[in-house]
This record gives sequence, C-alpha cells and structure tokens, in this order.
Amino acid sequence: MLVNIMMLASQDQSNELGITVKKVNDLGLGWVVTQHIITVKRMPQIYEKVMVATEAASYNRYFCYRDFWIKSEAGEELAKMHTVFVLMDQNKRKIARVLPELIEPYASDYTKKIERLPDPGKIVTTAQVRNKKYQVRFMDIDSNQHVNNAHYFDWMMDVLPADFLLTHLLTKMNIKYKQEVHYGDVVASDAQISGDVKTVHRIKTDKGLCCTAECSWVKHN
Amino acid sequence: MLVNIMMLASQDQSNELGITVKKVNDLGLGWVVTQHIITVKRMPQIYEKVMVATEAASYNRYFCYRDFWIKSEAGEELAKMHTVFVLMDQNKRKIARVLPELIEPYASDYTKKIERLPDPGKIVTTAQVRNKKYQVRFMDIDSNQHVNNAHYFDWMMDVLPADFLLTHLLTKMNIKYKQEVHYGDVVASDAQISGDVKTVHRIKTDKGLCCTAECSWVKHN
Repeated sequence: MLVNIMMLASQDQSNELGITVKKVNDLGLGWVVTQHIITVKRMPQIYEKVMVATEAASYNRYFCYRDFWIKSEAGEELAKMHTVFVLMDQNKRKIARVLPELIEPYASDYTKKIERLPDPGKIVTTAQVRNKKYQVRFMDIDSNQHVNNAHYFDWMMDVLPADFLLTHLLTKMNIKYKQEVHYGDVVASDAQISGDVKTVHRIKTDKGLCCTAECSWVKHN
Repeated sequence: MLVNIMMLASQDQSNELGITVKKVNDLGLGWVVTQHIITVKRMPQIYEKVMVATEAASYNRYFCYRDFWIKSEAGEELAKMHTVFVLMDQNKRKIARVLPELIEPYASDYTKKIERLPDPGKIVTTAQVRNKKYQVRFMDIDSNQHVNNAHYFDWMMDVLPADFLLTHLLTKMNIKYKQEVHYGDVVASDAQISGDVKTVHRIKTDKGLCCTAECSWVKHN
C-alpha cells in the first residue's frame, strides 16, 4: 500500500503535466518500473496523516530516475524510495528510447550516466528454500497488460511464515524486475531467511526468472 | 474496494462511539458479517469525491442490521448496502447474544423481528461450472483470525472470464457467509453465468460450503 500510494503521487504529477496514461499508451508506449529501492524508518500508523512527495530526478537515453518521500505532518521522514522507470514499446514488449515530449514536462536533469544500483542478494541453493505457487489474477493486471509491480510484494511476503511476519518490520527492500508476468501465468515465489534478519526472494514463471528482491527487517513484539 | 470503504465508515463510527475492535476483542468477541446485499446504480469514477454514510438501523437478540450509502458530491445515490452483523465468540467460534453495552451506543431500534432476506441463487449442477482454487494468504486474515469478507469478492470475480469482466458492470450482489475460512485453507471458487446476465457463486473448503453469492450485471463496452 505504501508503494501504491507513492506510485499514485507520480501518476498525479504526470496527469497535472499532461502526460496521462492514455497519452503514453496512444504512442504505443507504457511507463514500466525496473527497480525500487525502499527505505522505511517508521511505518505510518493507523489514522495518521502523511505527506507524499515525488520528484523526477534525472534521466538518460533509456532510464528515468525518480525519488519519493513519505513524511509525517511534522515533517519527519518516514520512508523514501528510489525508482527506475523505462518506456516499454507495448507491441514489441521491449524497452524504447525516452521520448523528449514525454520527459521534458518533468524538468528533470539529463545525464549520460547510467546509475549502478546494487543487485538484490541471491538465493543460496544449499540452504532451505520456502516456496509457494500463485496464479495471476485478473485484478493483478494494469494498463501495461501485465502484472502491476505492487502485486509482486504480495507473493514475496505471503511465502514467509506467519510468525515471522507478525514479529518483524520491514526496514529496507531492493526489488528488481527482469521480465513481465501475464494474466494466466503461474508464478513460483521462492524465499530464504538468513540469520541477520534478511530475506531474499525470487519470482519465476515457466519463462524463467522474472523478479528478485532482498529485504532487511527488525524484530519487534 | 467499495465494500471496504463502507465497512471502514462503520468502523469509524464504532471508534467514535468507543466500541473499538480492541474493546470487542477484550470481551472475547468479534463483529462478523453474515450477509451483504449491495445495489450499485453507478460506480464512482476515477478522482470523483464521494460521501459514505452508514446507520446501525435495528437489532434483535442475535442479529444487527446496518445500512450504507455512497453518494456523489451532488447528493446522487451511487450505491447502497444492507448488511447483517453478528457477534462471534472468538473461542467457541459460535454466534453470541448481542451484548447491551456493545449495541446501546449506536441508538438503533430493538426489534423482535428476524429479517427474512433472500438467499442467493444456487449453482445448477447440470450446467457448465467455472472453477479455480485459491490458497488463503496471510494478508487475507483480519482481527477475527479468519478471512475478511472483502476477499471473497476477489475469489468470486477472478473465476469469471476476462472478457466478461471487461464488458460487464455489477449492479446487484447478494452474498451470504456460512462458515469461516482460515489461514492455510485452500478454497474452491465455483461460478456459473446464466443467459440473463446473472452469475451465481460458491466458495468451498474441505470443511464444506463457506459462502454463496448471486450477482446481476449489465453489459457495457
């Protein structure tokens, strides 16, 4: 929900700037997330009012970098997120060059530099792997005709044991999307818990690896 | 989401009256929905502001009846819902008598009458039945330690074909909850589409029938 709300803020900004989903789709394109790096200092509490801020920070020929912040009413930073977007050609299902008319309204900085963000840790095949399978639901699909990024969290969290989820809070997450998942696909969600309260995750379909993630947690009661 | 928002309005009212979930849980009880009858005149549109209203209408020894309305800013009624609540004993997992201290703050009418609400239509075993199976997820569970009512909609809608969901709008739904579903259960969601654009639904676990529903739809493009 935290990520959904942040993504909605970027959608609101895009609408205000006239870069609607319809306008992007009419060009045969769609904005797609390839990576989120999330840091949570404190989760918003029930009935708490928060502020959501976002800025299209910079871009190069293929990648657009955006930052998000969630702040308390007093201005305390509760969470932040750094996200990599690409434009996907909706027919070829491949990354397209960033079109000037779709990026200029955001007034973000052009840079030749491609960010080198850390990759999520990998599952160690020798240790115990938790696994569940999920069938993609109709409501998981978004305007890009594939599973929306937010639904990968459901699969990744649900495979962890209930007693772990009840006693741990997420502090960091690095999630990288490699391949689309479609309506009708069955995904395998694999996870491994390591002693330093980290979890590593992998989402696969019969077409191969689709997504990897690494989470850091703190114990609470 | 529509039902979630209405249920949240009733939770807000309960909090304002001091009948919090914690207070009810501390008595070993929980409010549980046994039936919703929903009528939708027009679904709220994206970015539309709506008003959600609710009233605890009446109650008898075991059943509490509550009404909900969703209205446009101009006061047009968009949707309404009539809901039956019972108090469940959290240990015995059985219906308990309505406690005076939990119902009096709502100032609803006491009545001896038990409402005779229509039952949802049944699946006809001779016609084609659509079926999918779903494993209950950790996030489906609510403060009553069972699947929250809203998640049954996901299972019931997802079993319908994508081209039906893309071309039809829900106008009415009658859903009746018979038995709890728990974390770890696998549910079978059965559905049948009839020619007069009605669908009938059934949710079963290996403990038997848990929920039935009947939906009316209109075609759109």
